[in-house]
Amino acid sequence: MTLDDKGASSPLDSFYAVVPAGGAGTRLWPLSRARSPKFLRDLRGSGRSLLQETFDRLSPLCEDRFLVVTGTAHAEAVAGQLDKVPADAILTEPAARDSMAAIGFAAAVLERKDPDAVMGSFAADHVITDEAAFAQAVSTAVAVAREGWLVTLGIEPTFPSSAFGYIHAGAALEGHPGVNVVAEFVEKPSTETATEYLATGEFRWNAGMFVARPSTILDLLHTWHPEFADRLRELAADPSLVEAAWADLPKIALDHAIAEPAAAAGKVATVPAAFGWDDIGDFDSLATLLGGEESTSTVVLGEPELVQAIDTTGLVVPHEKLIAVVGLDDVVVVDTPDALLVTTRARAQDVKKLVNALKDGGLGDLT
Amino acid sequence: MTLDDKGASSPLDSFYAVVPAGGAGTRLWPLSRARSPKFLRDLRGSGRSLLQETFDRLSPLCEDRFLVVTGTAHAEAVAGQLDKVPADAILTEPAARDSMAAIGFAAAVLERKDPDAVMGSFAADHVITDEAAFAQAVSTAVAVAREGWLVTLGIEPTFPSSAFGYIHAGAALEGHPGVNVVAEFVEKPSTETATEYLATGEFRWNAGMFVARPSTILDLLHTWHPEFADRLRELAADPSLVEAAWADLPKIALDHAIAEPAAAAGKVATVPAAFGWDDIGDFDSLATLLGGEESTSTVVLGEPELVQAIDTTGLVVPHEKLIAVVGLDDVVVVDTPDALLVTTRARAQDVKKLVNALKDGGLGDLT
Repeated sequence: MTLDDKGASSPLDSFYAVVPAGGAGTRLWPLSRARSPKFLRDLRGSGRSLLQETFDRLSPLCEDRFLVVTGTAHAEAVAGQLDKVPADAILTEPAARDSMAAIGFAAAVLERKDPDAVMGSFAADHVITDEAAFAQAVSTAVAVAREGWLVTLGIEPTFPSSAFGYIHAGAALEGHPGVNVVAEFVEKPSTETATEYLATGEFRWNAGMFVARPSTILDLLHTWHPEFADRLRELAADPSLVEAAWADLPKIALDHAIAEPAAAAGKVATVPAAFGWDDIGDFDSLATLLGGEESTSTVVLGEPELVQAIDTTGLVVPHEKLIAVVGLDDVVVVDTPDALLVTTRARAQDVKKLVNALKDGGLGDLT
Repeated sequence: MTLDDKGASSPLDSFYAVVPAGGAGTRLWPLSRARSPKFLRDLRGSGRSLLQETFDRLSPLCEDRFLVVTGTAHAEAVAGQLDKVPADAILTEPAARDSMAAIGFAAAVLERKDPDAVMGSFAADHVITDEAAFAQAVSTAVAVAREGWLVTLGIEPTFPSSAFGYIHAGAALEGHPGVNVVAEFVEKPSTETATEYLATGEFRWNAGMFVARPSTILDLLHTWHPEFADRLRELAADPSLVEAAWADLPKIALDHAIAEPAAAAGKVATVPAAFGWDDIGDFDSLATLLGGEESTSTVVLGEPELVQAIDTTGLVVPHEKLIAVVGLDDVVVVDTPDALLVTTRARAQDVKKLVNALKDGGLGDLT
């Protein structure tokens, strides 16, 4: 069925959700670890991991047409968290080969399975607060994708971020009010350039959410990387080859492999999206997500009774024992069974530097 | 024997060291707890508790003439730490009645035991870095005390502290070069007043270290609190009465009960003392003690390999697991099995406020 009077959150005919579950979330250490990455963690205190929330958000749209692509190391944990997802819906990557291989392989699998398929790819570790708006945007994207477009959801920017790439929206797309052809994708800008972008009203954040027919994705890939596309189709035809062949696939992001050249060729459309999106890149954005931009109190992720804060603002994540904080502004305190982090929201980006220092210092086991 | 050519650290004839071991050290929470107070802790990373260091410092002077006065709750722990001290040298107080009762009772016990006794009272939780200078000062104080003076060691101030009471040195004491009669004891001053004190060269910190003959102490007490003095002598004569009688003793500090009025009567002498004294009142002074006044790096009390600090200064006390700190100046991070403190050196005084908040919030078990 297509979008009908049941509203935007009804299942979309032949719509498949593909969720690449990867990435260590290094800047969220020690909550996020190589062995227990961000997407497996409940970072909102909702009782559900980010992966589970991603499933909860997508399943009304795709019903049982849900695929996860994850590393071998995480397959068991992913299966454990997604008890409604059958084992054959979890595609495992023997090695990390970036997003083109992961999403392209899912496309090749779906291309064989359902000639009417439209797939949407959504990261497993993003937060979306307005699910109805998300469903509406996906519905629109699916309709556009059926016509052969590679569709990207363009997040309406709420501030001039220098942490995201941008989508420059071009001409309006006929027949789809509000949808535009993508003029170009642009790399992460300076804050100054981002401010100029926002003033034009033509730029959106690139959250890496793509919707397309599987064959659109593979055909575009074939245009610029024919052997890569052929190889993915071979692997989908005979999955027993995956184990041996995977490590030799090109390591490239979908953005670079197809989205950017396809945009230059006028083949990418963008659907505007304003649904409260966050990729929770670091503890500063987690603090904002949980407590607002300029919180005047201490935000607790976990049991509030384990935190005693006096004259303090920031984020505190307790683990089993009391954390008492006195007289610190915008502090970040994160306790875990085997490591404790103390930093500030302003230095949240430097947690990555810390994790590298731990690895260099022989403490890689803790990262 | 008296001071001879063996030097200042030889035992002093009939010199008894009396160590009141009390006080919770609230501002050093969570290292110091009501059940495991400061004096039982190794706060310098020396492998010895402050009480043990106090014993180590005094035993060359007093040999086996060492008495501890402590609360019933801590008697077992004190005995466990002082394995060379016989059980009858640990006097237990059934209830905390402040320093006059504790030291006065020890005086009454010693007055009966040894007519030649001179006693010195030294807190169990102070740090002294120059032990030779300490021994020299005590030797001088003992010689003066034999003549019937109540002698106090006056610490040469190193900065205009508003955290200590001061001793105003008056006339020189004949026959004892460098020793003065005390003009008066003055309460904790403002920093401004303290600065004026230091400029005169006549003021010293009152560290509560008193040396006197036991009968000097009891006779002075009898002058202003005759019933109190009589009662202490009765209890020393029949220690079986202590248990029932102790709670009714007046709760008053030795300073107020005898030192201040005796100074007004011209009966107190002060020996100048410059031996690197610290009462480790809070984490700021602990950080200074361990790392210096203006440390440019992170001072670790405990295993250095458990601390990973980037762009950080301050004090970190790890417990079994890694503590990583990024981008904080003058921070204080103290981990323990059941509570973690994060604050700053500037707010170290407010840890007391925090402990009160914990008690008020039903978390008194953790204090």
